Amino acid sequence: MLGKSVADLETPALLIDLDIMERNLQRVADYTREHGLRLRPHTKTHKIPALGRKQIESGAAGLTVAKVSEAEVMLGSGTPDLLVAYPIIGAAKLDRLMQVAAHTRVTVSLDSLEAARQLSAAAQAAHRDIGVLAELDAGLGRVGVAPGPELVELARAIDRLPGLHLEGIAFYPGQIKTVGETAALSELIGSVARELRRAGLAIAIVSGGSTPTLFESHKIDGLNEIRPGTYIFNDRNTMLSGACSLEDCAASIMATVVSTAKPGQMIIDGGSKTFSSDRPVTAEVSFGHVVEAPEAVFTKMNEEHGYVDIRAVKRDFAIGDRVRVIPNHVCVAMNLHEFVYGVRGGYVEQVWRVEGRGKLQ
Amino acid sequence: MLGKSVADLETPALLIDLDIMERNLQRVADYTREHGLRLRPHTKTHKIPALGRKQIESGAAGLTVAKVSEAEVMLGSGTPDLLVAYPIIGAAKLDRLMQVAAHTRVTVSLDSLEAARQLSAAAQAAHRDIGVLAELDAGLGRVGVAPGPELVELARAIDRLPGLHLEGIAFYPGQIKTVGETAALSELIGSVARELRRAGLAIAIVSGGSTPTLFESHKIDGLNEIRPGTYIFNDRNTMLSGACSLEDCAASIMATVVSTAKPGQMIIDGGSKTFSSDRPVTAEVSFGHVVEAPEAVFTKMNEEHGYVDIRAVKRDFAIGDRVRVIPNHVCVAMNLHEFVYGVRGGYVEQVWRVEGRGKLQ
Repeated sequence: MLGKSVADLETPALLIDLDIMERNLQRVADYTREHGLRLRPHTKTHKIPALGRKQIESGAAGLTVAKVSEAEVMLGSGTPDLLVAYPIIGAAKLDRLMQVAAHTRVTVSLDSLEAARQLSAAAQAAHRDIGVLAELDAGLGRVGVAPGPELVELARAIDRLPGLHLEGIAFYPGQIKTVGETAALSELIGSVARELRRAGLAIAIVSGGSTPTLFESHKIDGLNEIRPGTYIFNDRNTMLSGACSLEDCAASIMATVVSTAKPGQMIIDGGSKTFSSDRPVTAEVSFGHVVEAPEAVFTKMNEEHGYVDIRAVKRDFAIGDRVRVIPNHVCVAMNLHEFVYGVRGGYVEQVWRVEGRGKLQ
Repeated sequence: MLGKSVADLETPALLIDLDIMERNLQRVADYTREHGLRLRPHTKTHKIPALGRKQIESGAAGLTVAKVSEAEVMLGSGTPDLLVAYPIIGAAKLDRLMQVAAHTRVTVSLDSLEAARQLSAAAQAAHRDIGVLAELDAGLGRVGVAPGPELVELARAIDRLPGLHLEGIAFYPGQIKTVGETAALSELIGSVARELRRAGLAIAIVSGGSTPTLFESHKIDGLNEIRPGTYIFNDRNTMLSGACSLEDCAASIMATVVSTAKPGQMIIDGGSKTFSSDRPVTAEVSFGHVVEAPEAVFTKMNEEHGYVDIRAVKRDFAIGDRVRVIPNHVCVAMNLHEFVYGVRGGYVEQVWRVEGRGKLQ
């Protein structure tokens, strides 16, 4: 595949525009350096150790994963530091995590005494010292302890458990869907960090941020580490959130028109098995942005069929034509592809196996 | 893993109850035999050659796939016959399809003269004879030619193209979401087949059916072949359609409770990367049926987090508890798992690699 023209790739194929990707990496590296923020990118977006290495080389202090199996894969990046941003429950997974900790510095974010106790037991048995971030619920209502005495208690318990050391707090403000006001979040984070420190706890790291709040991270009181993922490629949701524009989207799925039997519609050879059925962050139902026909609406999917409404499109499409589609959510799309293609100037410069795809445990 | 207790598997894990699966296979084999219907199951549901072989052994005449890459994988089942129920466009894919045709009898369903011409050229170059089903749009508005003169023209063109032989017609009535009236569909299919035969075309196969209409296939005029997929496992959508009950659902995803920080909610260690973000066929937003807590509502997902509302549930859940969840759509869930586990009596009897997962081209 290397050196092949993009036109010679079979479809559907996920293409990464290398110029755009490199620009995206540079922009966030510059931003974090300028504002003295520690960068620990979430690798769930790309799932490729070689790209994790690129992030480290461009200034990231470490990498973030959600699963032990992803941590195992991401060791291949040579990262000196891995944050597992997920409570790891159960002896089998914790044993594997301790194996990972033999190769790189490991930190875990968690939100319960039970998870902390299990981690402490595993760390002691393996003679390891594991960093822990106490997870705060900053409004999403997913994992994380609500601000207040319960969070102080959890942080204190972590601090006292053998084999663990409290590094700070982590949060994910996923409820903020568009670029905008971070004042309330800033006030919350600042007050939580102060409360923990008043309680005598050493809070070295305040780790947070999300894609829509990425470039406002410096405005969040006390925040000193961010874990963005999507920024390496960006996607239609990032555009919709206002955090990037079309020219910043590095990943697209090239698809072929396979049917035009129904007037005003074309069927492309990718559906939910290629794009995922993730809907956009807005209320509309559309599964991607068709680069060659921005007026087209990608209205519906089955597993292998993409339904594209072309009634508002000025040009014609014929069977065999190819289009490139920016997916709503690139992380889940990456997870569906065995290989992706790094392209520059119309040619394939890199073929990457998505080594971390489908790593569930 | 073989012989392990299910309790010793790491989560999330997709489990197949072998007793239920075998009963499901038997039921459809009996039904098709009783009604003289040819059975060519769609293997997109399981994506495992060993299960394709089981379908052949229990009376299927052949197997169905959607992609050439799936056809390549499914050769491993030893099937004597493969239907590629998708228009195959482009020389590279057609070359690979001709390689498949060196090993088993291949039929393709398609809906355009362009697709037929490309297939004819590839068949001639490879000195193969490929069966073709002309695809009819029976109301879904996806692929398929509308009933009428255009369909007759397509069938006639296929009949005349060298390297191809017209076997009949295919359709997929995906617009029928619940078990019920098939009278209108029956009338349509019967009249289309008669029209084609009146035009002098030999229509040996009338291939159709969907999961909700599966056990009403014998009521559809002229239908003599069905291609059900989901019936091997069934899923929550099959239940919602009325075509099966909970005891017929063979596939479930075992997950672990990882957070109970928010009152009235538990977070399980599987989200859209484990279940897919496919919504149910009904209007409600729920991503699965929790076997241990039928009153629970699986309200939301991120990639690695399942949000389960347990306010209406009588029992308590603690971190580390395990639940089994029947997914909305089992085909897309299978595509996300590298391995699945065939279980009986609480023990792992089979470990299958999902060889056909992620086969996009």
